[in-house]
Amino acid sequence: MNVNGRASLNVALVGYGYWGPNVARNFSQIDGARISYICDLDDDRRARARQSFPYAVVTRDIEQLLADQSVDLVAIATPVSTHHPLAMRALTAGKHILVEKPLANSTKAALEICAFARHQKLRVFVDHTFVFTPAVRKMKEIYLSGELGTALYYDSTRVNLGIFQHDVNVIWDLVTHDLAILDYLLDGRKPRSASCTGMAHLGNRHADLAYLTLRYDHDFIAHINVNWLAPMKVRQVLLCGDRRMLVYDDNSASEKIKIYDSGVSIRQVEELYETLVQYRLGDMYAPRLETTEALTLEARNIIDALHGHDALVCDGDAGARVVSILEAANYSLRLNGQPVELESVEHQAAG
Amino acid sequence: MNVNGRASLNVALVGYGYWGPNVARNFSQIDGARISYICDLDDDRRARARQSFPYAVVTRDIEQLLADQSVDLVAIATPVSTHHPLAMRALTAGKHILVEKPLANSTKAALEICAFARHQKLRVFVDHTFVFTPAVRKMKEIYLSGELGTALYYDSTRVNLGIFQHDVNVIWDLVTHDLAILDYLLDGRKPRSASCTGMAHLGNRHADLAYLTLRYDHDFIAHINVNWLAPMKVRQVLLCGDRRMLVYDDNSASEKIKIYDSGVSIRQVEELYETLVQYRLGDMYAPRLETTEALTLEARNIIDALHGHDALVCDGDAGARVVSILEAANYSLRLNGQPVELESVEHQAAG
Amino acid sequence: MNVNGRASLNVALVGYGYWGPNVARNFSQIDGARISYICDLDDDRRARARQSFPYAVVTRDIEQLLADQSVDLVAIATPVSTHHPLAMRALTAGKHILVEKPLANSTKAALEICAFARHQKLRVFVDHTFVFTPAVRKMKEIYLSGELGTALYYDSTRVNLGIFQHDVNVIWDLVTHDLAILDYLLDGRKPRSASCTGMAHLGNRHADLAYLTLRYDHDFIAHINVNWLAPMKVRQVLLCGDRRMLVYDDNSASEKIKIYDSGVSIRQVEELYETLVQYRLGDMYAPRLETTEALTLEARNIIDALHGHDALVCDGDAGARVVSILEAANYSLRLNGQPVELESVEHQAAG
Amino acid sequence: MNVNGRASLNVALVGYGYWGPNVARNFSQIDGARISYICDLDDDRRARARQSFPYAVVTRDIEQLLADQSVDLVAIATPVSTHHPLAMRALTAGKHILVEKPLANSTKAALEICAFARHQKLRVFVDHTFVFTPAVRKMKEIYLSGELGTALYYDSTRVNLGIFQHDVNVIWDLVTHDLAILDYLLDGRKPRSASCTGMAHLGNRHADLAYLTLRYDHDFIAHINVNWLAPMKVRQVLLCGDRRMLVYDDNSASEKIKIYDSGVSIRQVEELYETLVQYRLGDMYAPRLETTEALTLEARNIIDALHGHDALVCDGDAGARVVSILEAANYSLRLNGQPVELESVEHQAAG
Repeated sequence: MNVNGRASLNVALVGYGYWGPNVARNFSQIDGARISYICDLDDDRRARARQSFPYAVVTRDIEQLLADQSVDLVAIATPVSTHHPLAMRALTAGKHILVEKPLANSTKAALEICAFARHQKLRVFVDHTFVFTPAVRKMKEIYLSGELGTALYYDSTRVNLGIFQHDVNVIWDLVTHDLAILDYLLDGRKPRSASCTGMAHLGNRHADLAYLTLRYDHDFIAHINVNWLAPMKVRQVLLCGDRRMLVYDDNSASEKIKIYDSGVSIRQVEELYETLVQYRLGDMYAPRLETTEALTLEARNIIDALHGHDALVCDGDAGARVVSILEAANYSLRLNGQPVELESVEHQAAG
Repeated sequence: MNVNGRASLNVALVGYGYWGPNVARNFSQIDGARISYICDLDDDRRARARQSFPYAVVTRDIEQLLADQSVDLVAIATPVSTHHPLAMRALTAGKHILVEKPLANSTKAALEICAFARHQKLRVFVDHTFVFTPAVRKMKEIYLSGELGTALYYDSTRVNLGIFQHDVNVIWDLVTHDLAILDYLLDGRKPRSASCTGMAHLGNRHADLAYLTLRYDHDFIAHINVNWLAPMKVRQVLLCGDRRMLVYDDNSASEKIKIYDSGVSIRQVEELYETLVQYRLGDMYAPRLETTEALTLEARNIIDALHGHDALVCDGDAGARVVSILEAANYSLRLNGQPVELESVEHQAAG
Repeated sequence: MNVNGRASLNVALVGYGYWGPNVARNFSQIDGARISYICDLDDDRRARARQSFPYAVVTRDIEQLLADQSVDLVAIATPVSTHHPLAMRALTAGKHILVEKPLANSTKAALEICAFARHQKLRVFVDHTFVFTPAVRKMKEIYLSGELGTALYYDSTRVNLGIFQHDVNVIWDLVTHDLAILDYLLDGRKPRSASCTGMAHLGNRHADLAYLTLRYDHDFIAHINVNWLAPMKVRQVLLCGDRRMLVYDDNSASEKIKIYDSGVSIRQVEELYETLVQYRLGDMYAPRLETTEALTLEARNIIDALHGHDALVCDGDAGARVVSILEAANYSLRLNGQPVELESVEHQAAG
Repeated sequence: MNVNGRASLNVALVGYGYWGPNVARNFSQIDGARISYICDLDDDRRARARQSFPYAVVTRDIEQLLADQSVDLVAIATPVSTHHPLAMRALTAGKHILVEKPLANSTKAALEICAFARHQKLRVFVDHTFVFTPAVRKMKEIYLSGELGTALYYDSTRVNLGIFQHDVNVIWDLVTHDLAILDYLLDGRKPRSASCTGMAHLGNRHADLAYLTLRYDHDFIAHINVNWLAPMKVRQVLLCGDRRMLVYDDNSASEKIKIYDSGVSIRQVEELYETLVQYRLGDMYAPRLETTEALTLEARNIIDALHGHDALVCDGDAGARVVSILEAANYSLRLNGQPVELESVEHQAAG
């Protein structure tokens, strides 16, 4: 294997907080890549990085890794507000970038990153990890097979007793996952409008729960319920078509994906009057899922994409689309649920 | 026992479709009441009524029972659009009324029923059955005890593969239950505004799924997710406070109510950074619930209220409050989620 | 339809305690049968019987119904110790009999009932109700289809916080269900030996929990765990073959039967070393089940069998086989688990 | 901290297969201990050991570590049949030992290890890991508090689709866990007798499923159901007393321990006749559990015990008691369930 004339992809990591260690571990274990730098401003984190990756250069000076000609890819795993400046510096230094989700804290910033990368002939990878999980990949496989029939709706509940993130609200934290999944499922098709309600409790500046509805062309609708104040963790998605319905329960150890043979149509439904007491109306099956770790598949996809062997699954454009919906959702939240057209958000960002 | 000078409450039932038979069974089995008339326009239904209640007069002529001076209470279990005219006729004939939920199909109609009943010095009972279930009663008991701390939010999911009701949409069908529960929990306190999104699929005239957010004064918010196109039945409510959180899962056979000792506050949450991976943070307990049937308690409450022995739990005013929220929700639905003030709905109904 | 020259099967019920009312209700609702007599020694029970079945003769005198030439079938739903004498009297009077499970309290008594019925040219039906449930019928259908491969074992857990039955121990009460199911699944094939352990707690005379192992010819084994002192109700059966494994969970509302595509063989298993962390290894599916009530199917089978239109599913011989295993299990229980050969029990009964 | 005059416990590990890496990781991360040697006969395993523990001496020659005076403790994580010879060599060399469960493959061998250690004034630790899990520790805490009342029974189901272990049967593999838990709960109290049934399928030499009943003095009984051929993983234990009942479900993410307030007594039970349909009869609660890893607590206990600061939780005597019950169970299995007295096993071992 050979990237930019070298035998193996040389990765520098910026940010060693919650997510960074996972990125480092994956690139250090996969064939065809290695971690050469880990950069963080915090002393404790650098100490931990040194212990786990004794062969990497651990530094608080980002210039050191940007100046190193042998670095191919800069992985950015820092707070959202720093994504744009760090991404621009890495691109300026001629590095491909992998950015933790969400790509940026505004559509304008996200589009700027994408445009500059194109100008520099460099690649932008966005870390939409869920897209690489076996469950979500199976969900797309089933969706594409037509087995579900015409898609009717996507309904996600993503709640837990979480830490309050002080730089972003629950939408930027949790809704991003669903938007990444939807973008992947629908091959980049975007909703027409977003309507979002929510609330900040306990004197918190940022919303700690939110309810987002996305309207698409045709009869498809998505709803996403996110909440940092729930007593238990729920990660459940319904993707329902008029022929079959799929439930994706990420908490289930052995049956993450279930497909219900519960077709509906007005006619059928009238006939069902007598069977109202039934819980469901047809067979159910739970397919076996692969067990590969999502980050491993993602790292593999990045390596292969850089070699031109594989299409990239989550590029900067996907990241920008997700950010534009997040921005529309936040705008609607401030308007107490009044629907916001996606086009207006994009128009403003471009203007 | 003595109602209007007679030994036992004399009940006439109008409507013997889906819900009517339950009403008849309960009033026929409880001490202090009896079913004397069952009225329905459909021949098959009347035949079934005769088989189950051989001692009752089964008729298609409502005038017959309205003319009978011995009838105390007319129970109305017919389609929503007929509630108002039937209620007005029964009140005109001097009967107390029990009306299946929702009380009417407009705030204006609901308020008219209440006003006319007051003028006639008669009582209006609304059949908010869920309010009498052991689980909801326990939920209120726990809420009132202060155990949960300050209430933060109510979040309900009420979905199933249901029959399409052709005269109403999913909001009138399913949201009514949650509004009745909320009205009971909050002692009649109403939300300030409603924001509702949803969709009608499959060429159906009426929305088959909807997402409603209600904003109350102070930091309380309610969200209700209803859906006739779900592969499985879910009936789950979260009622969360800043000290404890309650989960009410109506599908659970043995643990319908669970209370989680998962208090949150900004300070605590910061300290929790290290325990993010935990699913919950404190003890949980599931109290034992009574097993009395809700309709039996409701019939008992009606009988006792008519004797002046007990306060009425669900009166016409509660019914009207629920209808006004339903109307606001439907209005917001037509506006794609734009928030609708409750006051404006009521003002219009009164005007 | 015509039984013994009459248009409809004429049923007399003896015993109106826990189970009798269900038998009465089913024969009263099904086409081709009617309940003409209900007999019980207890005044309260007779009062209840009169209320529910006003058209039946309710009596404490069994002679009255035995003397009635128009009675075709006597249903016996009394304590186990009375089955044999009542059955013999009914057969003497020329009636077919339906006996609640277990058929009798000893193999000797069970065989005597069967032999006398044959002599009288009358039929013995045993009320192995579980055999008529949609779940058990589906289990047999799948078993017979060969889908599971070679059957390896049957493992049942049947526990709850139950009432203490004072005339029998937990084996006679709960194990009977599994033996009826096994007899049905295996078309009457009997185990070679029974080994049973258990205990009577709390000063009780009878065992309140028991663990029974049955060894069959070939490599098939069955284990049954019954318990009256469990904190929750469990009704779970595993029926595993070398190709697929079936789980029957009677508590599940919507997925009573699940089939796991988890074939095992020594060779495969060696290769699985790396996948040890997986919970299961293949797809799972849960077939839709019919919703007909078991007792209705059973009543239908009895009516059809008496007309010669259908083979009888649970006859006296099945009842006697189940009793002989119960007797072996109880004998082994007294020997603290020492295995008891079925042949020796039968030999003794016959001797 | 100071063991044998050195600052930190010096551990040598023998066996780097399935369990060894966990032992190495724990002693390498805990304060007060370090891994100095890893010994395995297999080349691949030694390569992996070198990668993960670059500072340890990795060798195939056990003599090397036995000869090193600085080694305090030899951890033995090899196949059961090799435990006795390796333990005796390590004790001869003057090392304390930690032996993976079960301690040995016969009571005679286990007792010999204990006796020789006493003679050498060295300590034997047995790796009964489950005893250190938060769930089992909570179970003992609740048991000792008297909250459950008089203990009635212990009933464990421990099944999964497992690899076939070729040197031992399912009893030596899985029952050991329950015997370790029982020994811990009952403070070393042993059962009087064991009765065990089971079967080897698929041409396998060793039993792949087994059912073990243990009878204790007084009215306590234990039953253990183990199975390598189950379609799903179950790890469930019931520990029931006459006042409360505890369920320990190791698969549950958030509610591993549940306590049911379901007291039973003959008198109460008679009164319960009418409430038979209830699933449970009182409140339930699920206490919060600690999240410390079991092996960390175990390593801590070993270090503290060697310093005389703490009593040892699982010593060689506990290991020998477990082995004697395993031996009795296997003997009973060969006798098809005939009960085997523990005393006879121990007498034979001593003889």
